Amino acid sequence: MRIICCSILLCAIVANAWADILPSWQANSQSRQEIITFVQQVSEPGPHFVPEEDRIAVFDNDGTLWAEQPAYFQLFFAIDRIKLMQEQHPEWKTTEPFKSVLSGDLKTALSSEENIKQLIVATHTGMTQAEFHQQVSDWIDAARHPETNRKYSSMIYQPMLELLEYLRANGFKTYIVSGGGIDFMRPWTESVYGIPPTQVVGSRVKKAFVIEDGKAMIKRLPEMEFIDDKAGKPIGIDLHIGKRPIMAVGNSDGDLQMLQYTMAGNGKRLAVFIHHTDGEREWAYDRDSTIGRFDEGLDEAKQQNWVVVDMAKEWKTIFLK
Amino acid sequence: MRIICCSILLCAIVANAWADILPSWQANSQSRQEIITFVQQVSEPGPHFVPEEDRIAVFDNDGTLWAEQPAYFQLFFAIDRIKLMQEQHPEWKTTEPFKSVLSGDLKTALSSEENIKQLIVATHTGMTQAEFHQQVSDWIDAARHPETNRKYSSMIYQPMLELLEYLRANGFKTYIVSGGGIDFMRPWTESVYGIPPTQVVGSRVKKAFVIEDGKAMIKRLPEMEFIDDKAGKPIGIDLHIGKRPIMAVGNSDGDLQMLQYTMAGNGKRLAVFIHHTDGEREWAYDRDSTIGRFDEGLDEAKQQNWVVVDMAKEWKTIFLK
Repeated sequence: MRIICCSILLCAIVANAWADILPSWQANSQSRQEIITFVQQVSEPGPHFVPEEDRIAVFDNDGTLWAEQPAYFQLFFAIDRIKLMQEQHPEWKTTEPFKSVLSGDLKTALSSEENIKQLIVATHTGMTQAEFHQQVSDWIDAARHPETNRKYSSMIYQPMLELLEYLRANGFKTYIVSGGGIDFMRPWTESVYGIPPTQVVGSRVKKAFVIEDGKAMIKRLPEMEFIDDKAGKPIGIDLHIGKRPIMAVGNSDGDLQMLQYTMAGNGKRLAVFIHHTDGEREWAYDRDSTIGRFDEGLDEAKQQNWVVVDMAKEWKTIFLK
Repeated sequence: MRIICCSILLCAIVANAWADILPSWQANSQSRQEIITFVQQVSEPGPHFVPEEDRIAVFDNDGTLWAEQPAYFQLFFAIDRIKLMQEQHPEWKTTEPFKSVLSGDLKTALSSEENIKQLIVATHTGMTQAEFHQQVSDWIDAARHPETNRKYSSMIYQPMLELLEYLRANGFKTYIVSGGGIDFMRPWTESVYGIPPTQVVGSRVKKAFVIEDGKAMIKRLPEMEFIDDKAGKPIGIDLHIGKRPIMAVGNSDGDLQMLQYTMAGNGKRLAVFIHHTDGEREWAYDRDSTIGRFDEGLDEAKQQNWVVVDMAKEWKTIFLK
């Protein structure tokens, strides 16, 4: 009888101690439980302990930390920039894909890779790094999503923000490893996610060091240098972090290699996929989506017993409170 | 009279407070004085104050933090590896440049860029990142310099180690930005300089993400991807740090662009060149040297009034105590 009492008491204490952790996750969420168990195992003395300098967690951005529908938010940045720049480019009124952007026909504007590339080159290259940084900062401060009319920085996922903070409180270093542009993310990730520029890994264009009017600066060239997606993600991690992470979180097939790379190391590790199951509060999509396709990754997650978060069932809140 | 007394007293206090700072630099060293003044100006409240997150200092490695004669130490690593690997490569006995390495004729072995490239490809590529990391770690623990018979990790400059520590004690983040290989430096910079892998920027080979026997890993490919030298240094800084440093220290023309880039920002900044003037305790070289040539940089330093450290006159000690 005393033993039973004790274990009831112990359960009550544990449940109580856990109550404040990840408050926007359902209390009975299995993913939440697995995450907390993992964090405790690697950060407390015991057989799975990992020293702080190796407690590295990597997060995809689009679809993992913030939404990505109906198009990657970076494309909305490009579109907003095209509109702002149109006076200096009268030729855009009659040239695709700019013409479609200006007439509001985003479907045509974003209908091919070549179109997207042209929009990116026009809005992401030619200027200095400092100028681009300023343009991105101005946009993130003011721009609003065409469907929700919310600021993009408020379309980050509240449960993920809590997860980032929980990990850091337990000695983890949190990194973004995104297919998005490194220079598109760095100006705002610190204020929005608490992740400083040095902990942001992403795709990038070529750059050149130039001296103009006696002033040394870096210019952005109209050529991709590196795509931080799929097999590129482990390469980006190795370049910027130089260590294999012990935890990786993604939401699509583009993150699969990052999770495979993370899980192939020694010791306790955790792989997590966010599954977009909530068509009411957000967007529901997986195997057949062109944006954030989650097909191969979903199969491997089941096979390997990785954590798959059912957003509809496991998250009390979706967007930033 | 009271005023004079006070200022004498004040001078005495200042001199006393400074006595423990950079102890291996001569007390009357002008460079030391300029460095301390700069650090105090940016880290104490006042018109030149810089918030901690922007107190970024970048250091070249070869010739700035450790010696670089009679050849870059990374080449000695390649040579030592060739000797270790020779049993698996009987053909090297009759093929240049390996033949010259094995017969001890380093002059011939390192006589052309093509030779050096072949030695680097043979010793730096083909393996996984983890294997290469281990090979470098083993080497730095055991190998000795052919002329001094000292461990390479003890041929770091004591005054520079003190400078790194002094900067960190004043809220600076210290980075290495070297023409040397990023993966050659990362395994040991933390224990030798107190600089973690994420704060090391360098040249790099291409890599591929592969899965072999179900195990995800990164392999090193026989092709250079980026040379972190001259105009490459500001590009490497931008990629890995994402901010313009406020202090840069180098020793050769390969560092000039890094110093120019650093000095072109707003606010108080400091550029420092280490001048190899000490043929007794180290090696003396500048304008005519093939390794660590310091010619254009020396001219610009004089013109711009940058700090130039005369090693012979300003450093009490050269190598690690």
